Amino acid sequence: MDRLLLSHGGGGEETYKLINEVILKYFGNPVLSSLEDAGLFEVNKKKLAFTLDGFTVKPLFFKGGDIGKLAITGTINDLLVIGARPISITVGFIIEEGFSLKDFCKILESMKKEVEKNEIFVAGGDTKIVPKGAVDGIFITTSGIGEVIYSGISCSALREGDLIIVSGGIGEHGACIMAEREGISMEIDLESDCATLLPILMPLFESGLEIHAMRDPTRGGLSATLYEWAYSSKVDILVEEEKIPVKPQVRAFCEALGFEPYHLACEGRVVISAPETSAYEILKILKSFEYGKDSAIIGRVIKKSDSPKVILKTLYGVERVLENASGELFPRIC
Amino acid sequence: MDRLLLSHGGGGEETYKLINEVILKYFGNPVLSSLEDAGLFEVNKKKLAFTLDGFTVKPLFFKGGDIGKLAITGTINDLLVIGARPISITVGFIIEEGFSLKDFCKILESMKKEVEKNEIFVAGGDTKIVPKGAVDGIFITTSGIGEVIYSGISCSALREGDLIIVSGGIGEHGACIMAEREGISMEIDLESDCATLLPILMPLFESGLEIHAMRDPTRGGLSATLYEWAYSSKVDILVEEEKIPVKPQVRAFCEALGFEPYHLACEGRVVISAPETSAYEILKILKSFEYGKDSAIIGRVIKKSDSPKVILKTLYGVERVLENASGELFPRIC
Repeated sequence: MDRLLLSHGGGGEETYKLINEVILKYFGNPVLSSLEDAGLFEVNKKKLAFTLDGFTVKPLFFKGGDIGKLAITGTINDLLVIGARPISITVGFIIEEGFSLKDFCKILESMKKEVEKNEIFVAGGDTKIVPKGAVDGIFITTSGIGEVIYSGISCSALREGDLIIVSGGIGEHGACIMAEREGISMEIDLESDCATLLPILMPLFESGLEIHAMRDPTRGGLSATLYEWAYSSKVDILVEEEKIPVKPQVRAFCEALGFEPYHLACEGRVVISAPETSAYEILKILKSFEYGKDSAIIGRVIKKSDSPKVILKTLYGVERVLENASGELFPRIC
Repeated sequence: MDRLLLSHGGGGEETYKLINEVILKYFGNPVLSSLEDAGLFEVNKKKLAFTLDGFTVKPLFFKGGDIGKLAITGTINDLLVIGARPISITVGFIIEEGFSLKDFCKILESMKKEVEKNEIFVAGGDTKIVPKGAVDGIFITTSGIGEVIYSGISCSALREGDLIIVSGGIGEHGACIMAEREGISMEIDLESDCATLLPILMPLFESGLEIHAMRDPTRGGLSATLYEWAYSSKVDILVEEEKIPVKPQVRAFCEALGFEPYHLACEGRVVISAPETSAYEILKILKSFEYGKDSAIIGRVIKKSDSPKVILKTLYGVERVLENASGELFPRIC
């Protein structure tokens, strides 16, 4: 390859390669190379988590949220899934000359709401205005710092026998954005699941229940998360189609357009790998919240493997390899 | 105003207004409202500094550096000028589809060099690839975390009688970028001053000498820094033209194009406000380094003021108000 392609940013196979074969060649260090959603390090014997995410979603405003809400919840979720309580965030805007101040204020208002709801504060930021055409509207980058309150969560910690849990319907954010962008009107409404995981994850951390891995399946969807885990932990994972929660409207959208719901981004869901001894208790806690009421155990880690893969047991009982997200289907989804 | 204009990102008067009248309305909190280059807060009784900066410079490669070097040194400098030793950084790329992998690797290589030179590590990051036309080439956002080792530096801490020190020639980055971008060929070479301030500032912190304020004069140049200080500390500041170091080629560039060198960005200089009792010692330390050899005391805080302003004593001995950077002269300078 001599050019960067949309697929390199898709969150699936090519992104994994770009990170491993290019970026880690320059920035490789034990913290970064663990490929978690946030880097961990100690300051004064306190373990901190540090993360950053860029947001280029189009359209800026969508059912269930906007780029501002996404930029705060996305970074908060990246801290949470490594076991950290979010403390503070910094915010960078890159804005096209002539952008509407009213829209900017609407975005700021959404961010403010999430900042308050999650009891964090904005420690700093930066605003760049670039000439017309240098950026399409507004891009936001947020960085977050949190204090690790639950240790040991890692994408390389999956063990044979672990059960895989998901906290609700998958693919809702991806389907919503695609539908809005492409002007596909559906009879049934699609709404982004964009939300902070704080209310459902803090009680989990406090429960002390054993958790091995945890991730919010954003770009590349459920399949990209499962593949990252399979690769990092060198295991085969089996998930059962009939157990994976997919809302009817997401399923209808996927059938109409020929997508797999497993490749569509979520922005308010968490996938958890936990031993059987704690998985059912975890499920109970998740289900006790309105936002986690559709939580389900969707599969398990079947064995150690030298050629890690994710297997899908279909509705018809057939087992097939679930393909990882690949190609350039979904640019600017988040 | 109902649209965001280039001037709102210029670093001068309009940026100050956008931050104070719009952004702080939503995100106002004691940390952010102090308007420092980095936010300060305590974790486990250790004071941390947290900052973020976006980089949209054009051209990407210029004499003395590139967008990658700038993205690391800029964020490191923002930590240093608040008295913090940089610990770690997170990096976000937003890249246009089709961007050259070779150029991307050149940028990564520059970043790697600065990361190593400054003994920090990359804790995380994000890479988004957006469709052709959604961004002009590549934008980088970096966020940094540091440990405060020198307390009390603040833009509201200037006192009557303080001397103002600058660590070298001003305006070199701004002049270099403008000249390269506009294809203005000069007989004398212009080179960006883009560099980390770590080597000259760590010895200063270790010296324990009294420092009141410290800032790297990037967007908006020396005048924007002096105005932010004047506004925050409610003082009048006087600087003397004949004492301000400006390289002949920068002066020639400014004369040819009708710019004030005081409005041109620096990317490797620091401005310091310190009491007379420590200012001469500070100057001695700065001058002991090759990179600080042109350091100079350029003026002083003349008095408390209800209508804060910066006064320039010109080469002809006349005193006039130095105008703050304003308007949309220099987009995409950093």
